[in-house]
Amino acid sequence: MKEIIIHEVGPRDGLQAEKQTIPTEVKVKWIEALMESGVDIIQIGSFVHPEKVPQMADTDKLFTHFSQSTCFSQSGKKVPSVVLAGLVLNEKGLDRGMACGVELFCMGISASDTYSKKNTGMSSEEALSRIIPMAQKAVAAGKKVQVSVQNAFGCSYEGPIQDEKVLTIMKKYLEAGMRRISLADTSGHAHPQQVERLFGAAIALEPQAELTCHFHETYGLGIANCYAAMKAGVKYFEASFGGLGGSPFSARSSGNVCTEDFVHFLQRMDLRPDVRMDKIVEVTKEAGQILNRDLPSFMNRIGPVPAGPASQ
Amino acid sequence: MKEIIIHEVGPRDGLQAEKQTIPTEVKVKWIEALMESGVDIIQIGSFVHPEKVPQMADTDKLFTHFSQSTCFSQSGKKVPSVVLAGLVLNEKGLDRGMACGVELFCMGISASDTYSKKNTGMSSEEALSRIIPMAQKAVAAGKKVQVSVQNAFGCSYEGPIQDEKVLTIMKKYLEAGMRRISLADTSGHAHPQQVERLFGAAIALEPQAELTCHFHETYGLGIANCYAAMKAGVKYFEASFGGLGGSPFSARSSGNVCTEDFVHFLQRMDLRPDVRMDKIVEVTKEAGQILNRDLPSFMNRIGPVPAGPASQ
Repeated sequence: MKEIIIHEVGPRDGLQAEKQTIPTEVKVKWIEALMESGVDIIQIGSFVHPEKVPQMADTDKLFTHFSQSTCFSQSGKKVPSVVLAGLVLNEKGLDRGMACGVELFCMGISASDTYSKKNTGMSSEEALSRIIPMAQKAVAAGKKVQVSVQNAFGCSYEGPIQDEKVLTIMKKYLEAGMRRISLADTSGHAHPQQVERLFGAAIALEPQAELTCHFHETYGLGIANCYAAMKAGVKYFEASFGGLGGSPFSARSSGNVCTEDFVHFLQRMDLRPDVRMDKIVEVTKEAGQILNRDLPSFMNRIGPVPAGPASQ
Repeated sequence: MKEIIIHEVGPRDGLQAEKQTIPTEVKVKWIEALMESGVDIIQIGSFVHPEKVPQMADTDKLFTHFSQSTCFSQSGKKVPSVVLAGLVLNEKGLDRGMACGVELFCMGISASDTYSKKNTGMSSEEALSRIIPMAQKAVAAGKKVQVSVQNAFGCSYEGPIQDEKVLTIMKKYLEAGMRRISLADTSGHAHPQQVERLFGAAIALEPQAELTCHFHETYGLGIANCYAAMKAGVKYFEASFGGLGGSPFSARSSGNVCTEDFVHFLQRMDLRPDVRMDKIVEVTKEAGQILNRDLPSFMNRIGPVPAGPASQ
């Protein structure tokens, strides 16, 4: 197995946060470039009500395109074995996802009751009792499933979230047979010591769990939190090209950890030399033009540390 | 001793990188606010030739002001026991610094010959043979001295710098009786694993050394590197209010780690709750207005993670 697995969430988490809807053909082009970059998982959409989140209205169409087409990339080469992921919020979304070729279903609940109620109308416990049967149904259908705990490191409404609350939800996921579990810092509150502590406890709970982390750069601690997660033994990392993202329901949240900056961070440490950062930066550049703003990407702005001496 | 010591280098390293010269009375006001913030060391100027770096032309005047005045801060309270530091590049600068009340002399050489020659006209070894007697002279005069190794983690001209080269310079500093040693990532190339490795080796070399780190945000790894340094046991951290800084001699360098963001990072981990971040942000806000640009400070832009639940 690769030492670090990169889960690109930009087409879903990133674009969902934008007011502007990106045309499907542009998304297809971006997803193809992301496939060519060599990231491992691409979350390409969310099965929400199209009228509620128009940016995600073409999710079924995108999955159908990529599962039915022969999946040739722009350069004419067959795409690598990237896993296409979709977010589902309820049974209807799950059915839609089943019908259009989702390979990895992502679903989750918030550890914060306040956030959960604002987001779903249900308490954390109610949400959990609905998510678990959905996850089991997807597994029974032979699908990969990642279940998540949102606001695992704090909540912009409730403030601090106790580790115990997160670990209790994780235990219930494990009891339900789930192994791929994401702890998400939805509000950007995480700090590195907390990350090492909580992921350390999570790994101790189930060393075989495939733990994923999801951090935001709200307060500038995203990459430091990634490093702390790596130190704790986490192997799966979610990130967004261009640092796009942020929940529309979270009061002060801002962008996700930027994928190309995360890849640069890895490659500085001789990890994932196979990933083509230039393909990700290409998407960020075009997204910046279309969204008409500078995206918070160091790699787009300044590029990587040069490999050798400067040519002068 | 405090667990983490904050060395604010903004008035020197930060302002030196700016084209615009800040009036002395504005600097005095900012240094007073920084004193009130509770940071431990403030580097207020550099003893360079006034015509070469006009931004630093008032360095002697600033030291005279703060050493001869009764040092009352804006609020009328006596300043806390902050140490005032100055950078010296040569014997003449040292004499100037001795004459005007410098408490901590900072001086150093680069581990990169190319950088050293561009910056000083001397090789690293020649520069070392001049710095050591200067450092010893300052110590003999009862002054505190911090010696540094610039480009300790890479060089924008030479590329990678071997750990051994840095440790050899450190050994010579130790043999010369120096204990306060800074390893500076002048070009912003450091990554967290390297930071843990090099500082780990440095601490193993002399556990009693007072090791200081100095990181830049050139590639977005500054805070992650600070965390890695903390993990390795480093206690002294240099940072600049507003993330100002960057050597005019380094090809692609950008700002230092931002002091207020670093303080926020510490306070999230229950470290240095005594530091008043608001006083530092006050300086950043005014500097941004005078320099007429947005400074890369998360705390200025978004403020800290709220202490408790949101009031709603």
